Amino acid sequence: MRNLLLTIAYDGAAYHGWQVQENARTVQQAFQEAAGRVLGVCPSLKGCSRTDTGVHARQFCLSMKTEHAIPCGRLVDALNHFLPADIAVLSCREVPEEFHARYSCRGKEYEYCIWNARVRSPFLRARAYHYYYPLQVEAMNEAAGHFLGSHDFSAFCRADSRERENMVRTITASKWRREGDMVIYRVAADGFLYNMVRILVGTMLYVSQGKIRAEEIPAILQSGDRSKAGPTAPAQGLYLNRVFYDGIEPAETIESMEVQKA
Amino acid sequence: MRNLLLTIAYDGAAYHGWQVQENARTVQQAFQEAAGRVLGVCPSLKGCSRTDTGVHARQFCLSMKTEHAIPCGRLVDALNHFLPADIAVLSCREVPEEFHARYSCRGKEYEYCIWNARVRSPFLRARAYHYYYPLQVEAMNEAAGHFLGSHDFSAFCRADSRERENMVRTITASKWRREGDMVIYRVAADGFLYNMVRILVGTMLYVSQGKIRAEEIPAILQSGDRSKAGPTAPAQGLYLNRVFYDGIEPAETIESMEVQKA
Repeated sequence: MRNLLLTIAYDGAAYHGWQVQENARTVQQAFQEAAGRVLGVCPSLKGCSRTDTGVHARQFCLSMKTEHAIPCGRLVDALNHFLPADIAVLSCREVPEEFHARYSCRGKEYEYCIWNARVRSPFLRARAYHYYYPLQVEAMNEAAGHFLGSHDFSAFCRADSRERENMVRTITASKWRREGDMVIYRVAADGFLYNMVRILVGTMLYVSQGKIRAEEIPAILQSGDRSKAGPTAPAQGLYLNRVFYDGIEPAETIESMEVQKA
Repeated sequence: MRNLLLTIAYDGAAYHGWQVQENARTVQQAFQEAAGRVLGVCPSLKGCSRTDTGVHARQFCLSMKTEHAIPCGRLVDALNHFLPADIAVLSCREVPEEFHARYSCRGKEYEYCIWNARVRSPFLRARAYHYYYPLQVEAMNEAAGHFLGSHDFSAFCRADSRERENMVRTITASKWRREGDMVIYRVAADGFLYNMVRILVGTMLYVSQGKIRAEEIPAILQSGDRSKAGPTAPAQGLYLNRVFYDGIEPAETIESMEVQKA
């Protein structure tokens, strides 16, 4: 039995996230249909993450087991042929039998994009959060710094989704930057709780608005109280940027997008 | 009677160009509807250019006369409220009565974007031409240089649209550049014939493919024969980038898009 690691990218605007759901179009469902057409049978797909409705991925990893002998390069081309244009397979490689896109994952990096201009951009409709008011990027970065390290992130997790799981996560990168009218937050961690990045962003927008002070962040973390953090920022600004595995480089991302013009 | 110059930007994917047509959705029609709702009556709109189906604009200018007293800033906000999200008004200013967005135009700049990677980008579906094969940018630039200056561009105009008009145009900028996986052609001229930029691009793609040599360009220009030039490149890669007027700066473009990430 072969075990394959596939790296894909997708524009999430038309999808209810990755995970298959009843009565809702998801990326996994679209992928299963394409894989079924290429391989004859539809293999069980293990995605690295669930992702919310409307969230995008510049690099998303999934693993699947198959008996089919199709070479990796041919599989990439065939899947791209059958997939809708808002999903693309970037690469495919053989991985050890025990590899699992979700359980083997050692960390992820997200970016959150805010279009911070008076007028919306017609080119970023479902691709960034349009925020009209001036942003206090320095204060937001002061807040961002407080998230670095290992903390219990219960206050930054959707309240109804807390299970008995361990709520401690270790954030290794947390920084805002401005590129013209775009203000971007990059955050990396060993894992993320449900809605965590969007609540971190919503909280830092509250910091920009003066509703929360940056130095209050440690107390909010300590409280474990969701109601003390800011609102959940809209999904359309969020991008899964990179996925990390020990000893395996998922390779291609749509990172060259960074220098693109349109 | 006030005369207003409005600068807009639009994602052209859903539109049959600017100009009103029967039984086809156009940017002008969407704009007229919004203007009618704001001003009560719908003023006659003069667009700077027609633009083809699927072509985008980072800066497009239109002028309109109105008796309405609404301040320019309020008009921008009101129009953006009623316009669909893929069209945005960037600015509005009062201009002399004789100003006409098309007849007063002294030149335009276009960009053509080619996504030159093995795999398509889910984020550039209707925003760039996906071209799989390696591009010989140096040879394309050699060809691009031959277009500079004043020439009769009959060979680079859609054959069925040649009227008795003057086919001479003066190109002041004509250059390809690579930015990661994106290869971009920027061209500026005092005016453009129908499909001209797309035929220039299609011809330079033929140069990249070795089907036409760069040094043959002067002879093709001289021939005035459309069949000697290359094919018309797809519309989705084309952006109207800037519009030039004497003594009037149309100001805002969605140029900060150049550094955007997504």
